[in-house]
Amino acid sequence: MTFSYNHLFAFTENVFRSMGCPEADATLATESLLAADLRGVDSHGVARLIGYVRLWEAGRINPTPRVGVTYETPSTAVVDGDGGLGLVVAPKAMEVAIEKARVAGTGWVSVRNSNHFGIAGYHAMKALAHDMIGLAMTNASPLVAPTHSLDRLLGTNPIAVAIPAAEQPDFVADFATTTAANGKLEILQRKNQPAPTGWIQDKEGNVSTNPNELKDGGALQPLGGETGSHKGYCLGSVVDIFSAVLSGANYGPWVPPFVAFLQPPADPVGQGIGHFFGAMRVDAFRPADEFKAHMDNWISTFRNARAVPGQQVLIPGDPERESSAKRLLDGIPLLDPVVKDLETVGQKFGLTL
Amino acid sequence: MTFSYNHLFAFTENVFRSMGCPEADATLATESLLAADLRGVDSHGVARLIGYVRLWEAGRINPTPRVGVTYETPSTAVVDGDGGLGLVVAPKAMEVAIEKARVAGTGWVSVRNSNHFGIAGYHAMKALAHDMIGLAMTNASPLVAPTHSLDRLLGTNPIAVAIPAAEQPDFVADFATTTAANGKLEILQRKNQPAPTGWIQDKEGNVSTNPNELKDGGALQPLGGETGSHKGYCLGSVVDIFSAVLSGANYGPWVPPFVAFLQPPADPVGQGIGHFFGAMRVDAFRPADEFKAHMDNWISTFRNARAVPGQQVLIPGDPERESSAKRLLDGIPLLDPVVKDLETVGQKFGLTL
Repeated sequence: MTFSYNHLFAFTENVFRSMGCPEADATLATESLLAADLRGVDSHGVARLIGYVRLWEAGRINPTPRVGVTYETPSTAVVDGDGGLGLVVAPKAMEVAIEKARVAGTGWVSVRNSNHFGIAGYHAMKALAHDMIGLAMTNASPLVAPTHSLDRLLGTNPIAVAIPAAEQPDFVADFATTTAANGKLEILQRKNQPAPTGWIQDKEGNVSTNPNELKDGGALQPLGGETGSHKGYCLGSVVDIFSAVLSGANYGPWVPPFVAFLQPPADPVGQGIGHFFGAMRVDAFRPADEFKAHMDNWISTFRNARAVPGQQVLIPGDPERESSAKRLLDGIPLLDPVVKDLETVGQKFGLTL
Repeated sequence: MTFSYNHLFAFTENVFRSMGCPEADATLATESLLAADLRGVDSHGVARLIGYVRLWEAGRINPTPRVGVTYETPSTAVVDGDGGLGLVVAPKAMEVAIEKARVAGTGWVSVRNSNHFGIAGYHAMKALAHDMIGLAMTNASPLVAPTHSLDRLLGTNPIAVAIPAAEQPDFVADFATTTAANGKLEILQRKNQPAPTGWIQDKEGNVSTNPNELKDGGALQPLGGETGSHKGYCLGSVVDIFSAVLSGANYGPWVPPFVAFLQPPADPVGQGIGHFFGAMRVDAFRPADEFKAHMDNWISTFRNARAVPGQQVLIPGDPERESSAKRLLDGIPLLDPVVKDLETVGQKFGLTL
């Protein structure tokens, strides 16, 4: 079934209002969440709305958080999310990073006491309108085994970097630091199809192609495959440390699970989950026009590279931008189980999808 | 053959002096270069000394550069390396980042008009003594094909992140954004052994295990393997843009080759090669003692994870630290071709190895 963006927006906004979010926060959360559906990252959009509602029901989301800066220097800040939706906390923290960058050239914000924030790319892209480079990362529920580990100690810990161009569309990289995001695995689970090797390991650390392996003690593997997973492990670790050890959030195996039926660890090492945001004013390095003209040249050089027959060289952000344009026009297709979940959510609050 | 660190240090320092480097710069360059040999990154140490000498003979290295800040804001700077050795330019630029961080909380420096700087990790680690997190990256000669590309548009573009701990040894990640660094491929070439799949492609973009494929139009592949190389492509691109588009260095296919027998492109888009450095004061986020105590907990949690039988979970930086300790005691083993190259260099300047 396909729904218009505006239809899903109104429904989702009403759900967040029904949870007790103030009007402005409900709008902010809806924009953050639906950015995933527009950009084709189906796993992180309204498909997760029921998950947020269940966390709220379990008392693990504060619908009226006082999000605030608890410590700062000219180019840094720590933001406490007061247990709010990451979808609300993240845009506010990114705004702090952008304000810092306006004055100091760059701004870097580490966030504690937050929850899942949707897609990293959406937050990084907030910098673009200000001729800034945006960065966003977050830690997440431990599903990933470091190289040689049997224990799951890291989340899929995504990194997003958004870089402005002039005539060319902006460069927007947004990727999990695992070979495959958990959302891609969920799709294979639904379709009951095997996963490519390099995505998952079983509980003994052996290569597995069973998409349900995580339910049996298996783990996602860090980006890099058989001879390079230590590099994905490094990246995921840096995201964890910047997001949580800098801010005072939970890290590693202490990150609270997204699913409400699993309890957070009883011995937390911090508060909630952590994010990290950065904004760098392009003209803190060279005139913005000059930078963006060279970005245009960079992008067109890469886009016009000779490609493997039948393929083309894409610029990070191309597929998501195309998806956005298409879905704003044609609507957002939702799988039946997602529609059913949304209807369940609607019933809780007396809302019709 | 094995040489003591001090012996190789004195020889290398004399070589740089003979090239016309001022005394202090020769020392700086030697420290930067030999950090690779100590840390076990044999491809980037004295094995490359002859390469630097040949670039100098070709007039492509300025032995007496005036390295200076050409633009700055409270938390950023652009440094012009004046065509000097990256081994000299990089430590000076990192010092600027650290000074910025002292005042503004963080410091970010993009460098143009430089040359290859040895290993990224060495430069990132300079932040540790100041209770700062250090970042270092550089672009490099184009040997890597973006996902689906037949053209080589990126270097192995490494990223290093160094994070201080208290009792535990520091966290030091340092990795190329390709599945394998070019140095590892050079080792297979010398041994005439096949490369694992996922490292290289042939000139038509097919999987190849021939370690000499690059000489026949092949390319290194970005980190991530068959289903994830777009992520390594994203990472390598970000390194290229931060290092060169921000600073005004050459980027993508315009990066000058390290080997002196290949000419730099005739139509440069900037000056020399580019680097990017960052320093973040830990106490710009939370008290340093608190941060480092949690880093100790992070590190010991990961190190003590259950491991695949016969393996252990390492912390980024463990193998390099062990190598350093061992080689400072037992000396640095060099392959015969490397010794021969050093003797050739010695003869040029009337120096005995």
